[in-house]
Amino acid sequence: MITIAEYILTRLRQLGVQHMFGVPGELNLAFSDIIEDHTEYNIKWVGGCNELNSAYAADGYARVKQSLGVLLTIFGPGELSAMNGYAGAASEDVPLLHIVGVPSTIQQKNQTLVDHTLGDGRYDDFSRAARQMAYPQAIIDKKEEAASKIDRILIECISNSRPGYLALPTDLVTQEISSDSLQFPLSRYVAQNDPAAEKFVVDRISHLFGQSMAQGEEAVVLVDLGAIRHDVVKEVYDLVNRTGFPVFCTPMAKTAIDETYERYGGVYWGSILSRPEVKEKVENANIVLSIGSFISDFNMGNFNYNIQTSRLIELQHDRTNIQGTMFPGVGMKQLIPKLANQLHHICNEISKTAVAKYVNIVPQESDDAITNAWLWPRFGEFFKENDIILAETGSPQYGIIDIPLPKGSVLLSQMRWASIGWTVGATLGACLAASESTTPRRSILLVGDGSLQMTVQELSSIIRAGLKPIIFVFNNHGYTTERMLHRESTQKKYPDLALWDYAGLLKVLGDLDGTRSRSYKAHTKQELSALLNDEKFGKGDTYIELVEIFLDKLDAPYALTNWPKAGTAPARRSRA
Amino acid sequence: MITIAEYILTRLRQLGVQHMFGVPGELNLAFSDIIEDHTEYNIKWVGGCNELNSAYAADGYARVKQSLGVLLTIFGPGELSAMNGYAGAASEDVPLLHIVGVPSTIQQKNQTLVDHTLGDGRYDDFSRAARQMAYPQAIIDKKEEAASKIDRILIECISNSRPGYLALPTDLVTQEISSDSLQFPLSRYVAQNDPAAEKFVVDRISHLFGQSMAQGEEAVVLVDLGAIRHDVVKEVYDLVNRTGFPVFCTPMAKTAIDETYERYGGVYWGSILSRPEVKEKVENANIVLSIGSFISDFNMGNFNYNIQTSRLIELQHDRTNIQGTMFPGVGMKQLIPKLANQLHHICNEISKTAVAKYVNIVPQESDDAITNAWLWPRFGEFFKENDIILAETGSPQYGIIDIPLPKGSVLLSQMRWASIGWTVGATLGACLAASESTTPRRSILLVGDGSLQMTVQELSSIIRAGLKPIIFVFNNHGYTTERMLHRESTQKKYPDLALWDYAGLLKVLGDLDGTRSRSYKAHTKQELSALLNDEKFGKGDTYIELVEIFLDKLDAPYALTNWPKAGTAPARRSRA
Repeated sequence: MITIAEYILTRLRQLGVQHMFGVPGELNLAFSDIIEDHTEYNIKWVGGCNELNSAYAADGYARVKQSLGVLLTIFGPGELSAMNGYAGAASEDVPLLHIVGVPSTIQQKNQTLVDHTLGDGRYDDFSRAARQMAYPQAIIDKKEEAASKIDRILIECISNSRPGYLALPTDLVTQEISSDSLQFPLSRYVAQNDPAAEKFVVDRISHLFGQSMAQGEEAVVLVDLGAIRHDVVKEVYDLVNRTGFPVFCTPMAKTAIDETYERYGGVYWGSILSRPEVKEKVENANIVLSIGSFISDFNMGNFNYNIQTSRLIELQHDRTNIQGTMFPGVGMKQLIPKLANQLHHICNEISKTAVAKYVNIVPQESDDAITNAWLWPRFGEFFKENDIILAETGSPQYGIIDIPLPKGSVLLSQMRWASIGWTVGATLGACLAASESTTPRRSILLVGDGSLQMTVQELSSIIRAGLKPIIFVFNNHGYTTERMLHRESTQKKYPDLALWDYAGLLKVLGDLDGTRSRSYKAHTKQELSALLNDEKFGKGDTYIELVEIFLDKLDAPYALTNWPKAGTAPARRSRA
Repeated sequence: MITIAEYILTRLRQLGVQHMFGVPGELNLAFSDIIEDHTEYNIKWVGGCNELNSAYAADGYARVKQSLGVLLTIFGPGELSAMNGYAGAASEDVPLLHIVGVPSTIQQKNQTLVDHTLGDGRYDDFSRAARQMAYPQAIIDKKEEAASKIDRILIECISNSRPGYLALPTDLVTQEISSDSLQFPLSRYVAQNDPAAEKFVVDRISHLFGQSMAQGEEAVVLVDLGAIRHDVVKEVYDLVNRTGFPVFCTPMAKTAIDETYERYGGVYWGSILSRPEVKEKVENANIVLSIGSFISDFNMGNFNYNIQTSRLIELQHDRTNIQGTMFPGVGMKQLIPKLANQLHHICNEISKTAVAKYVNIVPQESDDAITNAWLWPRFGEFFKENDIILAETGSPQYGIIDIPLPKGSVLLSQMRWASIGWTVGATLGACLAASESTTPRRSILLVGDGSLQMTVQELSSIIRAGLKPIIFVFNNHGYTTERMLHRESTQKKYPDLALWDYAGLLKVLGDLDGTRSRSYKAHTKQELSALLNDEKFGKGDTYIELVEIFLDKLDAPYALTNWPKAGTAPARRSRA
């Protein structure tokens, strides 16, 4: 026999969870006691300043580990504060388990009007709200069903790469249940493809590739975020290695394929924003094998894709779409290896045509003021192998797309949900995920002033946990993304922000004696370059470092300044 | 003809709104332009650092003005970030209009998978989530219905004192509609009582009072938050003035009745926590006339009420409950004046028995360390007439109940929803509401370290707006409320917080040259008293001032240290 709390911790531990995030509150303290006391699970509870930030942290943790992140809050104010974080995980397919400490089953049964309710005697207001955002929910209300509900939600989270919601009443935390099922660890469940449909799909795709190769036409592979979320990156490498097809990524999948990989051709960002050599290759290919595509304005260069349906084969985790014909139940995890087996017989020299190298060039500018045109390639020189790079929504997101990132680096950016401030919490989770591995990795946060103001307090949790990210804050006096996307606003006051002393934050928010952090201000290219060239700077293991970079309020990365009007990509009615 | 945006602004202006709160985002920028450009409406848009804080600000504004507060966010991340703030308004009956800038009607119709969606082609995920929290919603989807939907939701918000949700698609903001209806300003609508039922109720209550008076028994009036929210405070004063009945408040209604008023007897906080003289009066009264009661743990001394149903007459805005018998449709706004007319003939000398004066005594303690036992009475000496006092959930809420507050002062505290961090945003709104009146008022924020960390960035908006609250931060190294309510946690690490330099915050968050703020640290009674006695301190019109007060991590106000076990008050199944 084992308590329900320990049952949960055992399952989390089996799934590799070593850190969980949240804010303590009366309704989760009994569970918090057990997490803290039972050190044998080796799961550390990491307190956040608020629940939204903790949700972001759990999300960042899950993205770096490519497995489960866990958030613990309380019923009512706590869980609702986290809802935006939770919805972001739903939008971008992150397996985030949200455990909510809820009032006791007796209070719920009696409809006692306790604090944190709306005073309407209902206890399902908040779980019903969450239900609009996330598919699986497990509302534990009797101990007999606890184990199966916990197991079910965990399998759904990890198998479908989705958030889940688990309500744990205060009186059930220490109730004992059987531990029998714990001897069978849970694992990601991949539905078996229907053999006949799968064979049909493999044959049809092979036939199309065969025709194309015979006619001397090129084919390309286009990887999107679904490839990461549904765990087929290894399979894609195998396919490309064996066939030689050039491989491209979308913005949301940037770094899914190593950008130094010889068959990697760059980021396809629609017809207007892609680099010419990428646009030419992808848009002229006779076949585009799309893997795990994710539809959104940002990811698709504002819906300016120029890939006709007649040239498109789309693989998803649960279906395949060939030239507009859908084959449900044929998922890519099992399909890609079978395709690789067939296609490597078909492909020829044409499939192996050279891809342009993705070169980083820092422009020479006569003015010493820092510009985005100079800054992003300059960062390109600063990044190192295995860096974890967090690019906030807004300028950093637009700026990072066009520079090549080093081998082993990982880009984290919330490009469909686009909730500003996300990276600050996500950095906490990302650093802790990195700390679990033996490879030393730097974490680099690129964040605008408006975004940092949203979630600034979480810098304090980063300091407190002894983490050492390198933080670049872009001070351009407000919401420059709004100024760019809505030009009328450049004459307005509302995009302006309060001016902060960003370089003074770390000391006030926790490094009281100044021993753990270093902060800098860079007004000019020379100042910033000197810092980036300094061997003592940017080691990522000595101090937490923050650099406040001053930019003109109307200076923005190329893609933001030139963001196109929405194009003609068809509206998709199904989940992508 | 007038644009929909201007229609909304005209209505808000008619309702007295002079400040609205929110965060700009692409989906509300067209509306933001109009707010900023059309200065003739004299409505100032106040940008917040994040949407939750802005919701809190709008809520604080509404509470001080006792009328509508307005929040503007965007679809998806913005509105969900605000959800906890919005739910708090729902829990505590605050009229808060949440205007959400949503994608265009064309995008919605085409189910375009734009940024900020969950990628499921649905546009109602978030409004459906909000629907769990708030009753009225107006989803504008065609211009022909815009005016009536806007008017309907505003009337519902102000009449029922509830939050409301208004979705405004980008393409309809500048569409023109008829301005005809604007010549008829909206006003609070109070349903007429059914005359026969009302007469029956008046007679029944008069009879009970008559019996009671004849037997020499006392009667008391007990005012709760509903009296403020449903606008019957004036009627209550009239009743009490004419009858002489002693009047008490619950914690949530503290300051609804002036605490210097001669017939005011203090705060009834249930059987265990009330002062003896209050407990004796309320629990021994033969009739308790309860006005606008609000049920919650905190408000009822953890459900330790000792007022039997046989002695209880409950008036609510939409019903009356006499000794357990409900009369729906007999609301207090019209009922109380009729009761006053009858009861003042019935009442006699017994109804006018003296009430104990509510005296503030600062205890003498030999140790110079600051304790809660000393601190709260000491604040009692510092407060002045007309102060707006914001007491955060946790220690400040428990501490403030037991000290008398000056004439004209207003206490703002979120005692049922209890979302920590609320006061920081609410202070922004409260100060701006105060700035609209000609009476100079100080705003005083009493906030714990854990709560301040939740929402700290909004100090920056307070500085930026040139406001001058006096802020006391209680640094007790963590969540002392949790340590008190769950004693096991005193041995744990999870209630601890990162240590901040609170006195360093204002300079970093916006007072870069140090001309607008003054910050202090108080480690001892002597230091704090010297400051509170200093004439230059606490004027509330020269600087924004912040005092970091150091307390022991296990020192708490009496009521928190001695918080009773939950009592036997019956669970209520209806909204209270």
